[in-house]
Amino acid sequence: MTLSLAIDAMGGDHGVSASVAGAALCLKQHPECRFIFFGHQDEIEKAMAHHASLRGVSEIVHTDQVISGHEKPSVALRQAKNSSMRLAIDAVATGRAQAVVSSGNTGALMAISKMILKTLPQIRRPAIASVLPTMRGEVIMLDLGANSSCDSENLVQFAILGAVFARVIKGIANPTIGLLNVGSEDMKGTDQVKLTGEILRTHTIPGTYYGNVEGNDIPRGTTDVVVTDGFTGNVALKVAEGTSELITHFLKQSVKSSPLAMLGMLLASGAMKNLKRRADPRFYNGGMFLGLNGICVKSHGGSDSYGFSRALLLACDLVGNDYNRKVARELESLMDDDVSQVTDI
Amino acid sequence: MTLSLAIDAMGGDHGVSASVAGAALCLKQHPECRFIFFGHQDEIEKAMAHHASLRGVSEIVHTDQVISGHEKPSVALRQAKNSSMRLAIDAVATGRAQAVVSSGNTGALMAISKMILKTLPQIRRPAIASVLPTMRGEVIMLDLGANSSCDSENLVQFAILGAVFARVIKGIANPTIGLLNVGSEDMKGTDQVKLTGEILRTHTIPGTYYGNVEGNDIPRGTTDVVVTDGFTGNVALKVAEGTSELITHFLKQSVKSSPLAMLGMLLASGAMKNLKRRADPRFYNGGMFLGLNGICVKSHGGSDSYGFSRALLLACDLVGNDYNRKVARELESLMDDDVSQVTDI
Repeated sequence: MTLSLAIDAMGGDHGVSASVAGAALCLKQHPECRFIFFGHQDEIEKAMAHHASLRGVSEIVHTDQVISGHEKPSVALRQAKNSSMRLAIDAVATGRAQAVVSSGNTGALMAISKMILKTLPQIRRPAIASVLPTMRGEVIMLDLGANSSCDSENLVQFAILGAVFARVIKGIANPTIGLLNVGSEDMKGTDQVKLTGEILRTHTIPGTYYGNVEGNDIPRGTTDVVVTDGFTGNVALKVAEGTSELITHFLKQSVKSSPLAMLGMLLASGAMKNLKRRADPRFYNGGMFLGLNGICVKSHGGSDSYGFSRALLLACDLVGNDYNRKVARELESLMDDDVSQVTDI
Repeated sequence: MTLSLAIDAMGGDHGVSASVAGAALCLKQHPECRFIFFGHQDEIEKAMAHHASLRGVSEIVHTDQVISGHEKPSVALRQAKNSSMRLAIDAVATGRAQAVVSSGNTGALMAISKMILKTLPQIRRPAIASVLPTMRGEVIMLDLGANSSCDSENLVQFAILGAVFARVIKGIANPTIGLLNVGSEDMKGTDQVKLTGEILRTHTIPGTYYGNVEGNDIPRGTTDVVVTDGFTGNVALKVAEGTSELITHFLKQSVKSSPLAMLGMLLASGAMKNLKRRADPRFYNGGMFLGLNGICVKSHGGSDSYGFSRALLLACDLVGNDYNRKVARELESLMDDDVSQVTDI
């Protein structure tokens, strides 16, 4: 069975070459993939000339309209009907592709895919979710920035979207779900967070509700899923990235100041490479727009071909494991059960 | 001129010994310090037996009432009138001491000091502020957890509290102030944050308003001050701590897996110690409760004597540089200027 991916080839800092080379890397792991590239035909063909493997499994849909990184989502929504991003999303809506991947403008990608693909039944707002490295393995965290303000209904839905991801994609039969807060006690936090905790404690959801988690519980891997609003989640993700950069910076500075340490680091270079690999943001690239009635993955604007291939592989995982059908089924059975009380808040 | 510090000796995981040894370390740098220890007399005397330097500069006020880490602030406020924490705060209110430092229950410390010391005129809510390491030096960030929900009036006041700290304590004549948000554009974020940005852009405040900063701008040191609500700030601080732990963990694991790397690390051990020192959370220990009509510093519950000494030194800085009088003067002159429009929102 083929797996057809729509690629917005024009987004991102590294342009067409990163998306085309990323597709070639993805194809090595998933030979069943077929690609439809949306963007400037000449540029795409030029990039494809370096990747013989893509011949016969790729199609190009030409457009020279591109949504810039600075475009307001509302403007992109109304005006950019022939943009590479919009056409790639349309391909999922019409069933021509099973998922769309883009490195373009996040706000525009969310706005357009929400309008074109719509949300799953029972889901009011989609969330951006990513897998992050932890001391114990990995955590899936959401929302990372789609919704600056969230009410408890949104947060409970995010918990379900995350739990089903952990179960279906990560194979964790009974995932634990943590609610990001400023302390472990139930009385902590904002009103929305307190109410969300109350609902998650008293209702049946997929997996097990762990309770509140704090910022340091995310890298510690205390739970399989961490749920938060898009404002806090976005700040948390970027603080983690920035702190990782800061420590690397301190490490390099410390080593540079001593010839002995430089020699030591040379001996330890294998271990350092291993360290770099384990905390490689490219490996964890890919913000999944969960809750949409279609698969859409946002690749980091600065991602190179390897990073882009990781985002494509996430899309493959979601399609191959039938995530959306399974999450819809969970939501339905919860609806029959008692989630109507949950979402009626 | 002496500098008199009230120490709640009973808080924290390391008990009396950390606070007493911390005071001895502080005294080395500030020989003008005098200490009043509040807590169990026998225990304090026992700990002081190891620190001859403290004799003659210390006083003990005995109490066996202690506020536990799990006590609700509201209960601590009403019931623990003879607790070591309450008595230490009282000493600042009566002028017997110029600052109070405690490793105890944060919520109780904030609630009691707010009730006893009150806030500075024009400040509606105090914030918890800390100095954090960055690529370019240091940043002062607030609020780190005193207020889960903040309106724009609170956030603007935090900006002023932070800017005056950067100017008066850090000696930065024209500090830059960043507003933590999910993107650089003015249209980003929650309504409160957007309104705060609007006020900071259009009014005269101490220092220069930089605009929005994102999570990774904190460790990058993009601005001298970062302002946020207590929910986001608390999560951000703990994510930074946790990420730092995670990378150290990955580094240790990588090195352990290779004898060559272990040898390399041995050669680089000086540089590693240097690295550890630069990112040492104990060095940056001390949450200052800014905006109170009195100086109150919270030391981390897990801090050892070195960490505790750093919190004491922060208290010395705030007292010695007359922070509260200077911030009150700034607030007054802003009041005369146009901050009445700012805080009338």
